[in-house]
Amino acid sequence: MAQKYTTREEDYSKWYNELVYRADLAEHSDVRGCMIIKPYGYAIWEKMKEILDKKFKETGHSNAYFPLLIPKSYLSKEASHVEGFAKECAVVTHYRLKNAEDGSGIIVDPEAKLEEELIIRPTSETIIWNSYKNWIQSYRDLPILINQWANVVRWEMRTRLFLRTAEFLWQEGHTAHATKTEAISEAELMLDVYEEFAENYMSMPVIKGRKTESERFAGAEDTYCIESMMQDGKALQAGTSHFLGQNFAKAFDVKFADKEGKLEHVWATSWGVSTRLMGALIMTHSDDEGLVLPPALAPIQVVAIPIHRTEEDLVAINEKFEALRLELKAKGISFKYDNDENRRPGWKFAEYESKGVPVRLTMGPRDLENGKIELARRDTKEKEIVDFANIAEVIEQLLKDIQINLLERAKKFRSENMHSVDTYEDFKAQIDKGGFFLAHWDGTKETESKIKEETQATIRCIALDQPEEAGFCMVTGKPSSKRVIFAKAY
Amino acid sequence: MAQKYTTREEDYSKWYNELVYRADLAEHSDVRGCMIIKPYGYAIWEKMKEILDKKFKETGHSNAYFPLLIPKSYLSKEASHVEGFAKECAVVTHYRLKNAEDGSGIIVDPEAKLEEELIIRPTSETIIWNSYKNWIQSYRDLPILINQWANVVRWEMRTRLFLRTAEFLWQEGHTAHATKTEAISEAELMLDVYEEFAENYMSMPVIKGRKTESERFAGAEDTYCIESMMQDGKALQAGTSHFLGQNFAKAFDVKFADKEGKLEHVWATSWGVSTRLMGALIMTHSDDEGLVLPPALAPIQVVAIPIHRTEEDLVAINEKFEALRLELKAKGISFKYDNDENRRPGWKFAEYESKGVPVRLTMGPRDLENGKIELARRDTKEKEIVDFANIAEVIEQLLKDIQINLLERAKKFRSENMHSVDTYEDFKAQIDKGGFFLAHWDGTKETESKIKEETQATIRCIALDQPEEAGFCMVTGKPSSKRVIFAKAY
Repeated sequence: MAQKYTTREEDYSKWYNELVYRADLAEHSDVRGCMIIKPYGYAIWEKMKEILDKKFKETGHSNAYFPLLIPKSYLSKEASHVEGFAKECAVVTHYRLKNAEDGSGIIVDPEAKLEEELIIRPTSETIIWNSYKNWIQSYRDLPILINQWANVVRWEMRTRLFLRTAEFLWQEGHTAHATKTEAISEAELMLDVYEEFAENYMSMPVIKGRKTESERFAGAEDTYCIESMMQDGKALQAGTSHFLGQNFAKAFDVKFADKEGKLEHVWATSWGVSTRLMGALIMTHSDDEGLVLPPALAPIQVVAIPIHRTEEDLVAINEKFEALRLELKAKGISFKYDNDENRRPGWKFAEYESKGVPVRLTMGPRDLENGKIELARRDTKEKEIVDFANIAEVIEQLLKDIQINLLERAKKFRSENMHSVDTYEDFKAQIDKGGFFLAHWDGTKETESKIKEETQATIRCIALDQPEEAGFCMVTGKPSSKRVIFAKAY
Repeated sequence: MAQKYTTREEDYSKWYNELVYRADLAEHSDVRGCMIIKPYGYAIWEKMKEILDKKFKETGHSNAYFPLLIPKSYLSKEASHVEGFAKECAVVTHYRLKNAEDGSGIIVDPEAKLEEELIIRPTSETIIWNSYKNWIQSYRDLPILINQWANVVRWEMRTRLFLRTAEFLWQEGHTAHATKTEAISEAELMLDVYEEFAENYMSMPVIKGRKTESERFAGAEDTYCIESMMQDGKALQAGTSHFLGQNFAKAFDVKFADKEGKLEHVWATSWGVSTRLMGALIMTHSDDEGLVLPPALAPIQVVAIPIHRTEEDLVAINEKFEALRLELKAKGISFKYDNDENRRPGWKFAEYESKGVPVRLTMGPRDLENGKIELARRDTKEKEIVDFANIAEVIEQLLKDIQINLLERAKKFRSENMHSVDTYEDFKAQIDKGGFFLAHWDGTKETESKIKEETQATIRCIALDQPEEAGFCMVTGKPSSKRVIFAKAY
């Protein structure tokens, strides 16, 4: 209990790292850049998966599974794709180990060298489009609407738990369509699904937008994204949905016969979110005491702790909470009753606070006598003594309130840290304080990269709902028709 | 429709391969030994996962996730483990590709060689016990009851879809306990979970048993298994549960302080089932017309097909089936109505038969007039005309009947193919006809391997419920106290 943790104010990055350990979400493994997702962290990820999976199915998608290993040559079939992914690949070159002849241990068997090296998938467009080639002959075979839940590996040099790891878990949707319009609609639809998930389940407001050409996915014609603002004012890209045009269809020669029998290349999308969402969730809501979770994603929504002096009191309190457990279960609310005798209440308070349990109940002998209970909410840290009689209904409503309060709070924070700037001087003066900056830009890569070089800020996106507005690029003074969003980013 | 498929009688192995393609379950990828699990096949696997996951959680387990990549040196820490797994590993040696200087494409960057090679996990005992070392200090930290859903790679030389693939999907439970008794109980409990799943959901009878020493998991003190009999009389090991003793705790130096503060090595289990279950499911029930699925695992439980001449009829039939859809939905029964105008009824009949949909409904104009419907069950191929009025209740009961009938049918087949033999001559004369052979064995590796060499049959297990019975080894004549099960196996 006496352990002092770093606050957000003191060192945001250190606060984050400590919090991931303290809430028992994940830890570093001995394998460089690979994390271990611990049961409590994985339980949150499972909830995310379950909700997203349901949404994917409701929008007509099916799950499938494609190989982990991709022949090296596939990667080079789409020109910009290889540029984007070849630099960070884990390469399998051999398929056997053997005992060293000098008895020093096991070594890679030089006899077992693969003819063609295999890459651990950094993303699966190539292997999937190589399959779609055999699945698609006519317009009747379209659309194909497939999603895959999988692990991928990108050999990142600087890694952080959840935010950037060499191996991460994700879902990747890969769809094939007969028309450009249909493919673009699909990419937009999935962006909407991500937005709805972020706002209604993660209580995390996001801005839907389009990436600039230089920030696009390698192989995409258009990359849509949802961008969220962390508590340090930095941006985090929480999900992307790509319109891939006919690039992969051309690279893998995937054509379909339309109703008139004319052969045409297939149109494609891909879209994904990953365990990075865990990082976004943590950094959107948590405080110096630990994790703060929206009820919709909390593995434990309500924790109850007895405070007692006598065994008799404990028995009576146990009974009360057993009755409540059944009531909450009927309402689909997850409940944990912690009457472990080996831990003091103070230790338990800190523990469940660290873990972000949305609602805490405490009952002592006097509460018992008076038919009362103490109710504490994690988001605002407010406590009150309420009647035990209708506590299940009160909790049910409170969980809804917390879910909404977290979203409102995050929205308020974001709007307070959303700035409009008109000159590059202003921009440079303010960028270090964090937040999103709406500014005019001339649309060129050169200006974009000059700004990035001089300020570390990037164009996060061109927001879909950004109104047209005549203006002048803050750097070059050239005309611009719309502001774009700049920020430093994770 | 005119395509002729191989029958079981003609060529069981070819029948299986064709069926996997025909029912659209999976296909080979271009990556040697790696399969693509197609949406229909994956939907069955998802149902298996969901049911098993629920059972794991009900028995106190949590999911977590450990790295895909394991340092080569970990594998050698447990002596028998390395012997078992080193020979079939995918080895990552480099972490980057680059453009060849001669412009010939991309090559592995020789500068990006890993200091220590990484192995794609063939199983995760080593990386998990390396973590448990840090998680366990005292008896208070025990038990640890963790499961992981993951992909693993074992570089098999001869592969078959679902049955033996280089990459496969599975779950692996890894538990840590304070006492030997508790660990053994855990291993037995999980075997019971597997048995219950196999019989009640897969409709597949299994024999619970213990492996002989030479068939044990590399690193286990005892391997429990469930063995099932396929329609060709061969055995398939459908799941295993290992009591690992203190082997991994010793290899990774994992000790805990007991209540008296004394340090002791931790006791372990691991247990798993994989996409191999898909192969078992297919080969237990399917027939020459295609897949046969137990309703509990069928992605589509009921399919309905209209037969009509006029548009008017179709509209009326559509209405009937829409009403039925809602009724079945309320009962949690999955229903597909296929009124696709591009396909003829005959094509649809064959299609859903191939895919093993348990119940098929057909309605034509005369049925409509008479308030009747044709009901066909996939398992027995029986058809009857029944009243439409209470069809939802009839279907509900029929699905239960099919589930039980498949189990009973498989049990009957198994008992008809279970033989007791007393002499090695008899054994050799009968082994090629398939089935399980109960015989006495002297308990030595030598005899076991002689039998394997001469007949290709192995000891599948020593059944847990096998009664004691004094007898003599069929090969050496030495005394034996119990019969064991021999069979040829997948």
